[in-house]
Amino acid sequence: MSLRQIINESNTVAGKTFDYVVLALIVFSIITLTVDTLPDLPPIIDNALDISEIVITVLFTIEYFFRVATSPRKRDYIFSFYGIVDLIAILPFYIALGVDLRAVRAFRLFRIIRILKLTRYSRAMERFKKALSYAKEEVVIFLIATVIILYLAAVGMYYFEHDAQPEAFQSIFDSLWWAVATLTTVGYGDVYPVTVGGKIFTFLILMCGLGVVAVPAGLIAAALSKVRRDEDSEGKE
Amino acid sequence: MSLRQIINESNTVAGKTFDYVVLALIVFSIITLTVDTLPDLPPIIDNALDISEIVITVLFTIEYFFRVATSPRKRDYIFSFYGIVDLIAILPFYIALGVDLRAVRAFRLFRIIRILKLTRYSRAMERFKKALSYAKEEVVIFLIATVIILYLAAVGMYYFEHDAQPEAFQSIFDSLWWAVATLTTVGYGDVYPVTVGGKIFTFLILMCGLGVVAVPAGLIAAALSKVRRDEDSEGKE
Amino acid sequence: MSLRQIINESNTVAGKTFDYVVLALIVFSIITLTVDTLPDLPPIIDNALDISEIVITVLFTIEYFFRVATSPRKRDYIFSFYGIVDLIAILPFYIALGVDLRAVRAFRLFRIIRILKLTRYSRAMERFKKALSYAKEEVVIFLIATVIILYLAAVGMYYFEHDAQPEAFQSIFDSLWWAVATLTTVGYGDVYPVTVGGKIFTFLILMCGLGVVAVPAGLIAAALSKVRRDEDSEGKE
Amino acid sequence: MSLRQIINESNTVAGKTFDYVVLALIVFSIITLTVDTLPDLPPIIDNALDISEIVITVLFTIEYFFRVATSPRKRDYIFSFYGIVDLIAILPFYIALGVDLRAVRAFRLFRIIRILKLTRYSRAMERFKKALSYAKEEVVIFLIATVIILYLAAVGMYYFEHDAQPEAFQSIFDSLWWAVATLTTVGYGDVYPVTVGGKIFTFLILMCGLGVVAVPAGLIAAALSKVRRDEDSEGKE
Repeated sequence: MSLRQIINESNTVAGKTFDYVVLALIVFSIITLTVDTLPDLPPIIDNALDISEIVITVLFTIEYFFRVATSPRKRDYIFSFYGIVDLIAILPFYIALGVDLRAVRAFRLFRIIRILKLTRYSRAMERFKKALSYAKEEVVIFLIATVIILYLAAVGMYYFEHDAQPEAFQSIFDSLWWAVATLTTVGYGDVYPVTVGGKIFTFLILMCGLGVVAVPAGLIAAALSKVRRDEDSEGKE
Repeated sequence: MSLRQIINESNTVAGKTFDYVVLALIVFSIITLTVDTLPDLPPIIDNALDISEIVITVLFTIEYFFRVATSPRKRDYIFSFYGIVDLIAILPFYIALGVDLRAVRAFRLFRIIRILKLTRYSRAMERFKKALSYAKEEVVIFLIATVIILYLAAVGMYYFEHDAQPEAFQSIFDSLWWAVATLTTVGYGDVYPVTVGGKIFTFLILMCGLGVVAVPAGLIAAALSKVRRDEDSEGKE
Repeated sequence: MSLRQIINESNTVAGKTFDYVVLALIVFSIITLTVDTLPDLPPIIDNALDISEIVITVLFTIEYFFRVATSPRKRDYIFSFYGIVDLIAILPFYIALGVDLRAVRAFRLFRIIRILKLTRYSRAMERFKKALSYAKEEVVIFLIATVIILYLAAVGMYYFEHDAQPEAFQSIFDSLWWAVATLTTVGYGDVYPVTVGGKIFTFLILMCGLGVVAVPAGLIAAALSKVRRDEDSEGKE
Repeated sequence: MSLRQIINESNTVAGKTFDYVVLALIVFSIITLTVDTLPDLPPIIDNALDISEIVITVLFTIEYFFRVATSPRKRDYIFSFYGIVDLIAILPFYIALGVDLRAVRAFRLFRIIRILKLTRYSRAMERFKKALSYAKEEVVIFLIATVIILYLAAVGMYYFEHDAQPEAFQSIFDSLWWAVATLTTVGYGDVYPVTVGGKIFTFLILMCGLGVVAVPAGLIAAALSKVRRDEDSEGKE
């Protein structure tokens, strides 16, 4: 059992252990990042977080070099999706060394995506990718249609409400914020129409818009069951 | 017709009656629990609720022992899902005897789930279980993806809004609360972005996020109709 | 062409005209009812509304008697769904004659449902009924599950928030209102959790709850396409 | 390669370039329109926007005449959907020449719809049209049912809340606004029930209403996958 197998495969006990240790490290680094934003932390915890920050990054760096070294074709790993994610997670630390740039640290976060790589669900992930590529065209069209409807809604609302609420609907940009919050049905309630025209317009735009904004989720669900059905019938043959 | 049949089966009149009496007791106990939380109850009602509390628990205890006694394999019932629910519903009362621990009483609530055991819908429940196990992997993946997106949204929002609203976005934990309320489209309106960057970020995260959060429901619905279709075609053969 | 045909069928010009006149009357009566609730109406309009009220009810009464008279089996019409709706629409007027009982008038509203009887969509309505009866069991289970989850959410929230917000979460009844507004994702923002426990609980309950509350709509949509597919394949044979 | 080919087809390099130049112009004109609504713009930018306004309209006018001129059957283009959109985008400028009518300019916006005409997605658009015509009847029924439920909800709420909140629920028209915001689950929070009756009524109306308002999106998604499936099986034969 070589080092290469431990790092890149997960069908051995050592391989699985390695995977879970890396996963635990990722979760731990995310927790420290989150706790670090709490206000009024005692200095001792602040220091501990700073040190753990350095330790985690060094461990991630070692892991990165091992992955490069044990990869059969180095290029393939370095320029693969996960290779870039792994690099982005450590690079900012060295670039910003000495500089206290919090935002930079957040890039480490992208490693969360590794959670999805857990072997158990890799087949379901495969299905998801197939489903997405199957429904891609329709989803893209609905996203474009969503953007168009959002814009039309924003312009319409601007003309209806600008005079009644010059503060809330100052420009079409403000109006766009209302459109986003309304058509996704989030409805924070920070901006809403007060004129009769604006309210009727909201009703009409919601009648068309809900059917557009909610369809992509249905398309993905339908594509996923289609891919599953295909697999099942393949298995039977 | 033995006692065993009355308690455990529901294809006789006595069996059905027993089921409905137990159901009525559960509903009654839930109502007393709910009414008990009303402020300014007159002492006479308060006393009546306390007494009904004791009576119901005693009745549930008797029922529990009868179920154990009449069960062909005692272990199977005691460690079955419903056996544990039935025990949890009465145990806290005896443990906390004398102590006025309201929260403890709430465990009785879990007996609501018995409502779902009503014979009429047992076949539909069976289908639901099949559908859930069929779509399990996909649903789990989407739940993991939901958690990841929630976290990424929270971190992003923290960096956009922390300076503009130090109170509302004090730490990533506060930001997570915003992410939950937004991506589920609940949108209470207690926290929302005010900066331009935060608003654009909300739009982008909603575009990706809605497609993730809304898919599991579609998957379950699709799996349910698939299971139904399979049953129909089995019936035909 | 008899009077019976004009009233009960719609495949002749006179029959169609009659249908649309009745429809126009229904819409007109709904508009008067709505306008009547506007505050500060000038007396002249108020009077006109009162008179139109009487005229419409008399016309509906005449229509009702004609329908009874021309119906081949009088009983079938009187006790049919639409027969009862038609009666409810006029009866309160005569019972409350002289008494100014606004609420009573609102029953007239139920005649809106007649709009759905328009011939053009009768086949789609038929499909809808079939789909509903096909998916009935599943939908009922999910509605029961929704009620259970709402209640569990309300009780949980009561224990989390009662001490922090004694006003908003005074009893489980208030808490239920929060649960309804949250799990349907309406989120008015009049009540929301403020404690950390309450917020985490909200997150967990939304993760389970959204999958339950949103499924019935998916089930109905799936059943409708199934019914449609069956019809199409029948047509081919 | 004739001018006709460049303008009306997009399978040549020149044709594609022309398409993208027009597209860029549309996007640019939308951006100027949006920026123009920003308050406190410096006069120099305001002037630049006015000039770009004239230039764009002239360019669109030239494009329009070229399209008419190069179209094999002039009538077909002029009265086609896109022909009318193109005309509406320029006509108001000449009618309102001299008059400063902002609202008029907004018509230019309709040209956004041209984005959907991009060749890449024309097949998916075709599928969408088929799906819409396939599910039309059901979608129309659900829209009618939505309007009916909205109205019944509004009338019910008016009677429950009018006395408690005479300001917010002044007439059924105000009540309708509440119904729209609630049943679409937007829930701004500007109007919500405060009476016990109103809250229970909201719960009941949401239980029925969500199943109605959310179904059309599911129907469209189902129809789209059906159309796709048909195409796939046609391709196999």
